[in-house]
Amino acid sequence: MILSNFGEKFSAHSGIYEVMEDLGRALAKGGDVVMMGGGNPAHIPAVEAVWRRRLQELLDEPGAIERMLGDYDTPRGRLVFLEALARFFNAVFGWGIDADNIAITVGSQTANFLLFNLLAGQTGTAGATRKIHFPLVPEYIGYADQGIGEGMFSAWKPDIEHLGAHRFKYRIRFDRLDPGVALLCLSRPTNPSANLVTDAEIFQLSELAAANGIHLLVDNAYGHPFPDIVFHPVETIWNEQIIHTFSLSKLGLPGTRTGIVVAEKEIIRRLGVMNGGLVLAPGSLGQAILEPLLSSGELLGLCHDRVQPFYRERSRHALALVDELFDDRIDYHVHVSEGALFLWFWFRDLPISDRALYERLKAKNVLVVPGNYFFPGFNEPWRHKQECIRVSYCGEEKALRRGLAILAEEIKQIYSL
Amino acid sequence: MILSNFGEKFSAHSGIYEVMEDLGRALAKGGDVVMMGGGNPAHIPAVEAVWRRRLQELLDEPGAIERMLGDYDTPRGRLVFLEALARFFNAVFGWGIDADNIAITVGSQTANFLLFNLLAGQTGTAGATRKIHFPLVPEYIGYADQGIGEGMFSAWKPDIEHLGAHRFKYRIRFDRLDPGVALLCLSRPTNPSANLVTDAEIFQLSELAAANGIHLLVDNAYGHPFPDIVFHPVETIWNEQIIHTFSLSKLGLPGTRTGIVVAEKEIIRRLGVMNGGLVLAPGSLGQAILEPLLSSGELLGLCHDRVQPFYRERSRHALALVDELFDDRIDYHVHVSEGALFLWFWFRDLPISDRALYERLKAKNVLVVPGNYFFPGFNEPWRHKQECIRVSYCGEEKALRRGLAILAEEIKQIYSL
Repeated sequence: MILSNFGEKFSAHSGIYEVMEDLGRALAKGGDVVMMGGGNPAHIPAVEAVWRRRLQELLDEPGAIERMLGDYDTPRGRLVFLEALARFFNAVFGWGIDADNIAITVGSQTANFLLFNLLAGQTGTAGATRKIHFPLVPEYIGYADQGIGEGMFSAWKPDIEHLGAHRFKYRIRFDRLDPGVALLCLSRPTNPSANLVTDAEIFQLSELAAANGIHLLVDNAYGHPFPDIVFHPVETIWNEQIIHTFSLSKLGLPGTRTGIVVAEKEIIRRLGVMNGGLVLAPGSLGQAILEPLLSSGELLGLCHDRVQPFYRERSRHALALVDELFDDRIDYHVHVSEGALFLWFWFRDLPISDRALYERLKAKNVLVVPGNYFFPGFNEPWRHKQECIRVSYCGEEKALRRGLAILAEEIKQIYSL
Repeated sequence: MILSNFGEKFSAHSGIYEVMEDLGRALAKGGDVVMMGGGNPAHIPAVEAVWRRRLQELLDEPGAIERMLGDYDTPRGRLVFLEALARFFNAVFGWGIDADNIAITVGSQTANFLLFNLLAGQTGTAGATRKIHFPLVPEYIGYADQGIGEGMFSAWKPDIEHLGAHRFKYRIRFDRLDPGVALLCLSRPTNPSANLVTDAEIFQLSELAAANGIHLLVDNAYGHPFPDIVFHPVETIWNEQIIHTFSLSKLGLPGTRTGIVVAEKEIIRRLGVMNGGLVLAPGSLGQAILEPLLSSGELLGLCHDRVQPFYRERSRHALALVDELFDDRIDYHVHVSEGALFLWFWFRDLPISDRALYERLKAKNVLVVPGNYFFPGFNEPWRHKQECIRVSYCGEEKALRRGLAILAEEIKQIYSL
């Protein structure tokens, strides 16, 4: 079979695909697999009760289900939902946006694909490739394969700040910006490291984008104001240089595939056209479920009172388990947990590769994600990249303890202690 | 703002975008606009009652809604749904496929995007562009903008068979196949013409694909076995040369964004990887609604007893209205209505362009689609391309009569009768 260059590249065995396949197989298989690999959000009963109630309300409202299932929205989403979102963001953040600053996509993964390839890649006939630059790695695994062309990413090497014997935090090491960069991009909080890039760092990146006439894409999939899996206060600024993406997935609605983009109107207009070509229109389930919760204040309350405390407590508990289960003599480090739903382990001078560690854990029915996939665009040799793994703490508490105990035991054996 | 070449191309003002925007604005505006432009399926109460019942069943089944909303599926979709589909297709068509021959996408529009660009486009460093060839035009407007690269489409000029004074049918004029063609593609029934490419033509295309070691993509968005908007019996064959796409949209579920691809396993495997990169996983609403209806036989019954008769009667009625409303002296021709949900008008020697006709109708609050958008890959000058419009007959009967009456009156004026 002859494939196009894009086809060869985009259908090659990728890191994200492996994670999703392992996750899917494990979910289908059931049994005693400890799933700490995927990005599936937790099932929080108090939150699920709200989605269940909303579906019942849609069934009870004459015509609502029929419109939701039976009508295409515009390529940018439902106009009433876009308007409700604009009012919501303006109220929460004090922004001055309107519905034309917003587009809905079939998940924020798709939003990233469209934005990356709208702005970066080959330009002109000369074929210069404009790049997406990650100011901080590790960064989201799903970005790595989203470029239509080759060599579309670059990254700076982070600073590592040690915070006690077994904790650390990545810091952006601001460096020279290549003139071929089209877009700065980061997730906040960071998937995988649970890092919360500071307000000062965001401001500096926004200034850098402005100085270079480019954009800064902030991926808020885990961030404020929803799902709000953020463990200390942050500011979320917007200006025409900044593109924000949001998602309903970590709120507990990944099955709805709903992503939200806020950007200057020219970008949104083009995104709408691209969405029309790619998917005709986004799905309407997530929009229909969420819409009334935006203006009533229920969404904010739900995030603040249910979602955030749940993950905050999980994070605290997971770190306590780590302290309890890991041999203090091991040179292990966990990134400070400032948000999202992962622990990011760094095993300094790990005697085997992250991939070999992944396989050993998989053989013991524990699924994690090898860390080296999370360094898109950072191609310098650096041992650190093979010394990390990402561990989700979203599963049941018993499973989490079992998974972390198996990890601690394997690590102990690997370090020959 | 500097855009990538792909970004410039993919976000340019496109035919499909214009249709969707006009539709969306008209839907939001409400009032007395006659919407005969979009591809929105009709609201059929007996069918909607089934979706409503299914949602209630999902709410009543412990854990079903929580799984549907709260869990990512695999990049290819839910395994149980894929297995149910394989059994369904094997039972209906006598195929010998299994779940690994099937992938779910966020609508068949996305399936086309992925398949087109997997197989066609630039190959190698020399940069030869492999093409998608449409054996018959007019063909679906949404294909026209889906190529990542430039110049990815070619098409043969059709034969026109006159069937009475005001009816005609397009026939494939088999011609030389360029060696650079990677994929043959057609919709069946054809959007926009309501043509049903014959079993013999499909067989000949399949043979042609085999002889050239390429694939034939058949887009069954309106076809058999669901939604089954097909007005005379057809066969649906499958072999490793053939890629079928199906959709839940015209069944009345466009809001779920659910597309289905059946193909050889290597293509499906690659499609799964691409889906992971593009959307992580498809949405689960459509899969959850449909699954039990596949094995129970309810889906087939619904299509055969409700969907098909509804559109068959609409088609008959619409054509009767045309015969009643149009001045017999006008050299107008309507394509025979063999399926789908459109009338395709051809006004021979139309004194104005199709675009000008579209604008005149829009000014009278009647939305149609100009025909010239439906000739992707066919770049020869041909007056016929500017002499056609597509008219949906899905709206309310009163609106249909009003819309067709306005069209008949405008046409009469344009021909100065």
